[in-house]
Amino acid sequence: MNILLIGGNGFIGSHLIDVFMQNGHNVRVFDISMEKYRTAIPNVDYRIHSIDDLTALYESMLNMDIIFHLASSSVPSTSNINPMIDVNGNLITSINILNTAAKANVKKIVYFSSGGAIYGPTNGSIGEDFPLNPISSYGIIKSTIEKYFLLYSKLFNIETIIFRPSNPFGPRQGHIMSQGVISTFLRKIIDNKPITVFGNGKSAKDYIYIKDLAIICYHISISKKTGIYNVGTGIGTTLDQIIFLIKKVTNSNPKIEYEIVKDYDVPNFVLDISEIKRHIGNFHFTNLEEGIFETWQWIQSQIKK
Amino acid sequence: MNILLIGGNGFIGSHLIDVFMQNGHNVRVFDISMEKYRTAIPNVDYRIHSIDDLTALYESMLNMDIIFHLASSSVPSTSNINPMIDVNGNLITSINILNTAAKANVKKIVYFSSGGAIYGPTNGSIGEDFPLNPISSYGIIKSTIEKYFLLYSKLFNIETIIFRPSNPFGPRQGHIMSQGVISTFLRKIIDNKPITVFGNGKSAKDYIYIKDLAIICYHISISKKTGIYNVGTGIGTTLDQIIFLIKKVTNSNPKIEYEIVKDYDVPNFVLDISEIKRHIGNFHFTNLEEGIFETWQWIQSQIKK
Repeated sequence: MNILLIGGNGFIGSHLIDVFMQNGHNVRVFDISMEKYRTAIPNVDYRIHSIDDLTALYESMLNMDIIFHLASSSVPSTSNINPMIDVNGNLITSINILNTAAKANVKKIVYFSSGGAIYGPTNGSIGEDFPLNPISSYGIIKSTIEKYFLLYSKLFNIETIIFRPSNPFGPRQGHIMSQGVISTFLRKIIDNKPITVFGNGKSAKDYIYIKDLAIICYHISISKKTGIYNVGTGIGTTLDQIIFLIKKVTNSNPKIEYEIVKDYDVPNFVLDISEIKRHIGNFHFTNLEEGIFETWQWIQSQIKK
Repeated sequence: MNILLIGGNGFIGSHLIDVFMQNGHNVRVFDISMEKYRTAIPNVDYRIHSIDDLTALYESMLNMDIIFHLASSSVPSTSNINPMIDVNGNLITSINILNTAAKANVKKIVYFSSGGAIYGPTNGSIGEDFPLNPISSYGIIKSTIEKYFLLYSKLFNIETIIFRPSNPFGPRQGHIMSQGVISTFLRKIIDNKPITVFGNGKSAKDYIYIKDLAIICYHISISKKTGIYNVGTGIGTTLDQIIFLIKKVTNSNPKIEYEIVKDYDVPNFVLDISEIKRHIGNFHFTNLEEGIFETWQWIQSQIKK
């Protein structure tokens, strides 16, 4: 298949590149810059442009079998400070992608939304039909973009898949001003700085190793399935448990500082993954300690460079 | 009370002006232009500016007890052609209003969303907790704006009410390129042109006379209540029934042309109004025939001008 990954040089995209290449597909990447942590991958067709260059975007979409939209210019932690960044950077960009896809006669499109930011506060396991009550501008705009994908799917008869990943972690996730606590905590240990925990350490979230996520999304994307899919492990892990594992893996004893929970942060969430389980069967998820170990190895290799 | 109506010179706003003035409140209107169908109302404090003039907007908010956001630059029928109009004209405008309200230390804010466009296709009676699956860009953006109102309510401790009106109709609704079928149909009769019905005439919607809507929204707004409220009659009326009443009221027999339903149009919807009923008790809704008669009288008076 011919695959276009828009925003493919980011954290999730880089792992999708790997899975698609390993399975013999033709991969094209449209992104504003090359990967931060790797040099160019042989045989990947890189199209390095601003996403505002709609001509280049249109040309990149021609003759593609599936288009993935992974581009994002914000993270939950800063979005409430200035929602306009989400509107201009993410919503308008996404509508541009959809308009361009309709013009380019795209048949199938996959959007990476957010399982962590879109549902809002809750307890218990969250299915895809759970009401969307995001508490950050980031989450609001993700839910709005989803609705535009579903609208364009209907208006232009485009097969559409929406993935809602939980908290992915692993190699190539940013570890400074990061999207993820595991990378951030590991980096603090390298820098010999205290780890800051928001909340009391008891809040549980659904962490998924990035390579597992990429494989699951690969299999569903190349199938005939459409619709919305939570992508997580379905298992909640508290910050205290994460810290326990990090101490074990790194063999260190960092100072832990507790601060009050931020307003944009959903304290607890675990995804209900019944839907993806129907497609992936008895998928073997990477053990959390093993995933943290791989991430630790990778971060150390980056620092040594 | 001191009331600011942003977009108060439109259809719904003009009736809110009436109710607030009749009840002895101080009314300020912020709008891009004066009312289309009336001259200035005595003792109303008009602030005629573009909504992009954030300084004027900020000044208009000072010392107000309640701020109403009724401004809208689009209608469902055109929104799918260019969603950017909704994003730029409605979403960004609404975020500007919220940011300005937070700066101006506003304590209470009321947003007029849409009961007709926000829920998407369904059968049966729709409560406020019904999932939001809008099928027009207009509806998507209305639902997004609602989420920003709820976010700002939490971030800045602003009392917030969201009204979701069904299909309001009555005097001062546009009758050319209109938002409402009743005004549009009546105008066609005056112009001796055929009436176009989208669908088979059997689809039922919830029509509310604008003066009823204004009174209900007035009472809830000045109460201590917050949250989301459907505002309709809870009664479904088919297009065939509307046409029957229009023929009766106007004593005419227009030609009816049936066309296929538009993609943005929700075929059936009736609001569940249990929530407002708790506050308005045995409110006497204007009889539909009577409302159509009042609207007919008004449209005729406009044409004679």
